[in-house]
Amino acid sequence: MDAPFLLACKRQPAPHTPVWFMRQAGRSLPEYRAIRGTGSILTAIAEPDLAAEITLQPVRRYGVDAAILYSDIVVPVHAIGFGVDVAPGIGPVIAEPFRSKDDLARLRPLVPEEDTPYVLETIRTLARELPDAVPLIGFAGAPFTVASYLIEGRPSRTYALTKSMMHAEPALWDALVDRLADLALASLRSQVSAGARAVQVFDSWAGALSPVDYRDRVLPATRRIFEGLADLDVPRIHFGVGTGELLGLMAGAGADVVGIDWRVPLDEAWRRVGPDKGVQGNLDPAVCLAPWPVVAAEAKRVLAEAAAAGRLGHIFNLGHGVLPETDPDTLARLVELVHGG
Amino acid sequence: MDAPFLLACKRQPAPHTPVWFMRQAGRSLPEYRAIRGTGSILTAIAEPDLAAEITLQPVRRYGVDAAILYSDIVVPVHAIGFGVDVAPGIGPVIAEPFRSKDDLARLRPLVPEEDTPYVLETIRTLARELPDAVPLIGFAGAPFTVASYLIEGRPSRTYALTKSMMHAEPALWDALVDRLADLALASLRSQVSAGARAVQVFDSWAGALSPVDYRDRVLPATRRIFEGLADLDVPRIHFGVGTGELLGLMAGAGADVVGIDWRVPLDEAWRRVGPDKGVQGNLDPAVCLAPWPVVAAEAKRVLAEAAAAGRLGHIFNLGHGVLPETDPDTLARLVELVHGG
Repeated sequence: MDAPFLLACKRQPAPHTPVWFMRQAGRSLPEYRAIRGTGSILTAIAEPDLAAEITLQPVRRYGVDAAILYSDIVVPVHAIGFGVDVAPGIGPVIAEPFRSKDDLARLRPLVPEEDTPYVLETIRTLARELPDAVPLIGFAGAPFTVASYLIEGRPSRTYALTKSMMHAEPALWDALVDRLADLALASLRSQVSAGARAVQVFDSWAGALSPVDYRDRVLPATRRIFEGLADLDVPRIHFGVGTGELLGLMAGAGADVVGIDWRVPLDEAWRRVGPDKGVQGNLDPAVCLAPWPVVAAEAKRVLAEAAAAGRLGHIFNLGHGVLPETDPDTLARLVELVHGG
Repeated sequence: MDAPFLLACKRQPAPHTPVWFMRQAGRSLPEYRAIRGTGSILTAIAEPDLAAEITLQPVRRYGVDAAILYSDIVVPVHAIGFGVDVAPGIGPVIAEPFRSKDDLARLRPLVPEEDTPYVLETIRTLARELPDAVPLIGFAGAPFTVASYLIEGRPSRTYALTKSMMHAEPALWDALVDRLADLALASLRSQVSAGARAVQVFDSWAGALSPVDYRDRVLPATRRIFEGLADLDVPRIHFGVGTGELLGLMAGAGADVVGIDWRVPLDEAWRRVGPDKGVQGNLDPAVCLAPWPVVAAEAKRVLAEAAAAGRLGHIFNLGHGVLPETDPDTLARLVELVHGG
């Protein structure tokens, strides 16, 4: 029988609701902090043994139904030499941000076996070591979110420069997001070839956009990624935060499963993405900092809202990544609850 | 005849769609930068002549239909000695954040004439100087957003500590937001007595919450503010960012007008808040950084969406504050467009 996670992605009956957590590998785990060191995440990602071990840690500890490649959305642009680093406590920082047509030349196509051999080696290791019931999810950033880092040069609250380029130079913007779509697609196809059994595309900050801007300037490039993966027969997950008003549009991008944050009740979210999609989510990560009875009650509410939709295809997850302050025991109990409930 | 802004707030026919901009007074204006200096905004607010002049600047320049008191949501907690400052480029910072029951004692009631005489003096000056057609809007922070600063100690992206307290210590949380509601109410009542002809309550970060948390832990205290203003017969505006999923609940808080950000089309937003409310919004402030034809097209879309709702009571505004990079000429043309359109 297929893994429960894959069954749910295909909206087929599964023995239990599958569960995994975005950022399940990471700073909330003492075993992660023990081996991770203090350097850039990009250095850690480039060490296949370390990256594989970090990916495996939460699988061992929690018994989650999927592993997610330890990676970062800027890996491909970093690998082709755009000049990106990830500063601890800040996020992606770009020495020379993307500002004009000339910068397009800095975004050549990705040749995965040459540019990111360490990613593929990590995945091959994981494909050997993970049990068949726990598929590995590949990882890429969506064009808007990656573009926002390249243009702003660092994390932003307003996306002023990003939106300025989108509005003032739509042709340049479209060329940029098309190249970023190509990078994501090449990376994801190579990840699947190496052994990833599903993929998730992170458009974490798409929720900053109006529906019109999303539809006209972001959706087409994003759709190219999912269409370019269609022949591979792996579930495709599409994730963003604060995307309540975009869910209907995002459904049109072509993923099999849409990630939902805690702002939209799951049954309503499922109505918006339509019956031919699975949904993933949507517990508020901050709830996991509360005492267990609060966590349990909220998790049961999420499960009940998913059940209220009366459909197959719910994957339990948080609505965004695990907060570093989270007690791992809470996540362990959460997995038990979801599996038992 | 009443001022167009007040007519729209009451959903009565107005000679034109009224328009003003959140943060219309501020860093985007050269005349503001010329007189403002570099210190904390709290120092500037405490100088009535300066604060009144800053409030008047955009009225003179743009011909907007309302003035908004130059203020900050932390003014009342600062005035009662909680130990708050507003750090330029960062936002509110708290030396000793709110962490436990003992901290409630640091939140005594506000006595506006004694604690914030400068606010009242500023308003009295403005009431004399503003034309009758341009009402002054009073200003207060809503309990959730102010609480988030008091608890986090500085601006946050995750609100982890805030939500932790909300979930782990609901009684303490409720006591905190009740006190913050009392502060906002006392401040707003005094502002109206001094000459404010409308009020806006800023719950800028409420959109970080799930609908359940908003309903159970934020709505009751917020409602007390609007109910406590009901006898004053001034329009009450309720504003937040990313509140698409909360609009129906926010409508129940009792304001006359609900502020909408650019994530929800105005006609859909109006459907959610219901026919007995006005709506204010909702151009993306980042659009104002684009060339004029883009700004004009987007502004016309906003006006068309408001018209599509087929109701009276639209006040044109941005979906959040004016970005400092904005060219004032763009806002001047926007006022012309809205008045002419």
